[in-house]
Amino acid sequence: MTDFTTARPFAHEDVAHWDIETEVAIVGFGASGASAAIEAAQAGARTTIFEMGSGSGGASALSGGEIYVGGGTDVQQAAGFDDSVEALEAYLMMAGGPDADAAKVTLYARESLAHFQWLKDQGVPYKGTFVPGKIIEPETDDTLIWSGSEEAWPFSEKSRPAPRGHVIQHMGWGGGRRLVDVLEAKARELGVEVRCDARVLSLVADRDGAVTGLIVKIDNKPQFVRASRGVVLCTGGFCMNQDMLRRYAPEALRLSDPIGENDNGSGILMGMGAGGDAIHMDQFFTTCPWIMPPSLVYGIIVNERGQRFINEDCYHGRVSRTMIDQPGGRVFLLADNAIFERPFELSRIEIAAVGETWEEVEQELGMAEGTLAATVHTFNRYAAEGHDPVYRKHPQWLKVLNEGPFVALELNFSESFFSFFTLGGLNTLPTGEVLDSAGRAVRGLYAAGRATSGLPRWGHGYSSGMSLADCTFFGRQAGKQAATAGTATLVEAAE
Amino acid sequence: MTDFTTARPFAHEDVAHWDIETEVAIVGFGASGASAAIEAAQAGARTTIFEMGSGSGGASALSGGEIYVGGGTDVQQAAGFDDSVEALEAYLMMAGGPDADAAKVTLYARESLAHFQWLKDQGVPYKGTFVPGKIIEPETDDTLIWSGSEEAWPFSEKSRPAPRGHVIQHMGWGGGRRLVDVLEAKARELGVEVRCDARVLSLVADRDGAVTGLIVKIDNKPQFVRASRGVVLCTGGFCMNQDMLRRYAPEALRLSDPIGENDNGSGILMGMGAGGDAIHMDQFFTTCPWIMPPSLVYGIIVNERGQRFINEDCYHGRVSRTMIDQPGGRVFLLADNAIFERPFELSRIEIAAVGETWEEVEQELGMAEGTLAATVHTFNRYAAEGHDPVYRKHPQWLKVLNEGPFVALELNFSESFFSFFTLGGLNTLPTGEVLDSAGRAVRGLYAAGRATSGLPRWGHGYSSGMSLADCTFFGRQAGKQAATAGTATLVEAAE
Repeated sequence: MTDFTTARPFAHEDVAHWDIETEVAIVGFGASGASAAIEAAQAGARTTIFEMGSGSGGASALSGGEIYVGGGTDVQQAAGFDDSVEALEAYLMMAGGPDADAAKVTLYARESLAHFQWLKDQGVPYKGTFVPGKIIEPETDDTLIWSGSEEAWPFSEKSRPAPRGHVIQHMGWGGGRRLVDVLEAKARELGVEVRCDARVLSLVADRDGAVTGLIVKIDNKPQFVRASRGVVLCTGGFCMNQDMLRRYAPEALRLSDPIGENDNGSGILMGMGAGGDAIHMDQFFTTCPWIMPPSLVYGIIVNERGQRFINEDCYHGRVSRTMIDQPGGRVFLLADNAIFERPFELSRIEIAAVGETWEEVEQELGMAEGTLAATVHTFNRYAAEGHDPVYRKHPQWLKVLNEGPFVALELNFSESFFSFFTLGGLNTLPTGEVLDSAGRAVRGLYAAGRATSGLPRWGHGYSSGMSLADCTFFGRQAGKQAATAGTATLVEAAE
Repeated sequence: MTDFTTARPFAHEDVAHWDIETEVAIVGFGASGASAAIEAAQAGARTTIFEMGSGSGGASALSGGEIYVGGGTDVQQAAGFDDSVEALEAYLMMAGGPDADAAKVTLYARESLAHFQWLKDQGVPYKGTFVPGKIIEPETDDTLIWSGSEEAWPFSEKSRPAPRGHVIQHMGWGGGRRLVDVLEAKARELGVEVRCDARVLSLVADRDGAVTGLIVKIDNKPQFVRASRGVVLCTGGFCMNQDMLRRYAPEALRLSDPIGENDNGSGILMGMGAGGDAIHMDQFFTTCPWIMPPSLVYGIIVNERGQRFINEDCYHGRVSRTMIDQPGGRVFLLADNAIFERPFELSRIEIAAVGETWEEVEQELGMAEGTLAATVHTFNRYAAEGHDPVYRKHPQWLKVLNEGPFVALELNFSESFFSFFTLGGLNTLPTGEVLDSAGRAVRGLYAAGRATSGLPRWGHGYSSGMSLADCTFFGRQAGKQAATAGTATLVEAAE
């Protein structure tokens, strides 16, 4: 077999024979690929999905099926929240970090309500009910939850808070599988061809750099696929590729639990090899489910030096991501007897120290005298007054931690459960067109989801549902754009 | 004029006529390019340097001309330091961070003494004298200084400390200009052709991806240059390219003072376009000269929450880089009357608060009561005992800060002097061969210095002299390898 590589496209001029002909070839059958396929097929293009696994799913199917939408959905309104496009946009800009993609954010905020309707139109069920409180995903089949840092400083100062995590109707965790099933059914209904157990080996590009097809391994044979209108990379991130993590995001090597199925970064590499520019490759989302049970959110979190480092009422992933920035490999969640409950078993959070006083806890952890204990006493003094002038935790989560015995729970990056996935990827226009480093579109090449740097592109700003929002919405744009290449029309703008 | 781009090589097959023929084409005439040229010419290759500026220099000429070498140089020995290859290697591995390049580190540690001799052989003068203390560069023409975190925790625990910054003999700061002059003279003596005011527009590669030449703008006309043995990119980093900073290292956008001449990243972009893999693009070095006068090193540094965050006796750049990780945009250097002297004027460090007590300083800064003052009191209590169990500052830099009045000096990322340059770049073998994302060498393409991710590749581990060490040593390897392509022989291994 010829030695194909993801690092460089195969030369179009050297293709002797096309084994498969299609118009839009989509690589990867998670939420991005399915959404792209639906739009491409509806736009009239012959559409084929190539999936390396044995069926649809990808990382999307491992998720909770939660989508970050706002601007005043029916569910938000029914629960009494008055969200706006402006508030959603402001939040997404903050969440996007120092290089938030204003074009994508603005478009998504404006079209968020229409996108929610589109999801329903595809058959995604929503019960329409709100679950208050600080949770990771509903244990029930309810819809709306607080899924980010909306109520926490500094987000709450610049964007009017509203819950925006909209979860597919599904009893318990894991609704992502159902979400992909619904989208898959719709894609198949529209006549999209699906090739599973089909691993893409290489893109094909002509000598002008335009992508014209790909080479797929099917039945252990390389098959040459002509994609006359374009290739859409929906291959996910690279959390399962240790070598890529080492080269681009080595801090993530400290984490134990990638959320992925075949997230080996192959699409990003192929896109780069075809001239695409990969950006913010150091960024990743991570979280440890330390807010289960939620009474622990009344606790405070300190690093190995006994110092707090964030308002603990932020989104659990933002708090967890900030843990990684701390000196050393451990952080501690401090609780008193009134709020202590045993942590969620799967979190692998262990008790590191117990004491009748905070000084005893400090000593048992081997910390210098006057560090952890001083931190708690300062926190307590202000909590008693109902505020936290140091890290601005919201008063609703303040509790004086003075009811002994006291406990330090240990979160250890290499031993506790820190799930993660990568956020860096190909630089794309809102249309899904992949840009080269000079800002020009690579002809015939599109991408969406975690193969791109999208709405979620800053580990410290991630909120639950942002990735699936990005996958489904910008997957749609990419599919439509590929199918109608040359028209430069966005999905919603055309409707 | 045809629309050339750095994002993609021009097709070799479309070159109608070669205007210039050479064997090794070197792009950029700083320390890397000069070192590469010397070796290439000595290996017998016809060698041409293309420099976009009007003369040699680059960022190297803006430096202090300090090179990080060790393992027991004559200068170290004369000053009574017993350094070893093992200690140098251990230090460089720590300094390289989570993805230190073991192959480069091991080779450089082993060949460090021979490389120092090579520098002398080219005519680089060294006085041979040691200057003790914590300084940035000698004000004199002395040679050896402590230029990193060798004596500071945690480096001191894993590598026996020795000073390793070897500065060219030159009165005062700025010896980098002389270093490049010496190397330039040697290169010219060897018959290297030099084309200045020659901006490279694009690489040329054949349809198999091998780099065969480049296109250079000379006299406002594109000239096609055939480089029969290879192209060596010695173009520096991208600290002066705002768009690249935004896409790859947005945290550096907060900093005010790039150290560069034409460090626009063009070589990195051209290398990427030719299939090269750019790694650790988020990494950068930064420093604010807060250790001038050095009495201020007895002070402690706190973030906006009044918390310390590092042992302040680390290399000034490591301390400065860690400042950027802190919440907010300001940090404060705290001094008492005994150690206070006015900061180096160019640092743009201002007095933010003065008080008769630390509580007054805390209040004047608007910090919550019991934060900054508590930090100082805890530090003082331990300093009086001669240790710092919280951040492990070395006892030699501990002083009880109890002689009022007290002052908080403000370091503000956007207003104080934070010089910086980037550390991410092309992934290369120790031979300078540029690797693609699959780990295969791009034929005909080499790189060195800040166009690569080299010895210095982690902002938190940078030490003065590491970049010029990398530029000169691995510039040599790349020049030799290009000149003798196919032999895979390293410079020193061949000697």
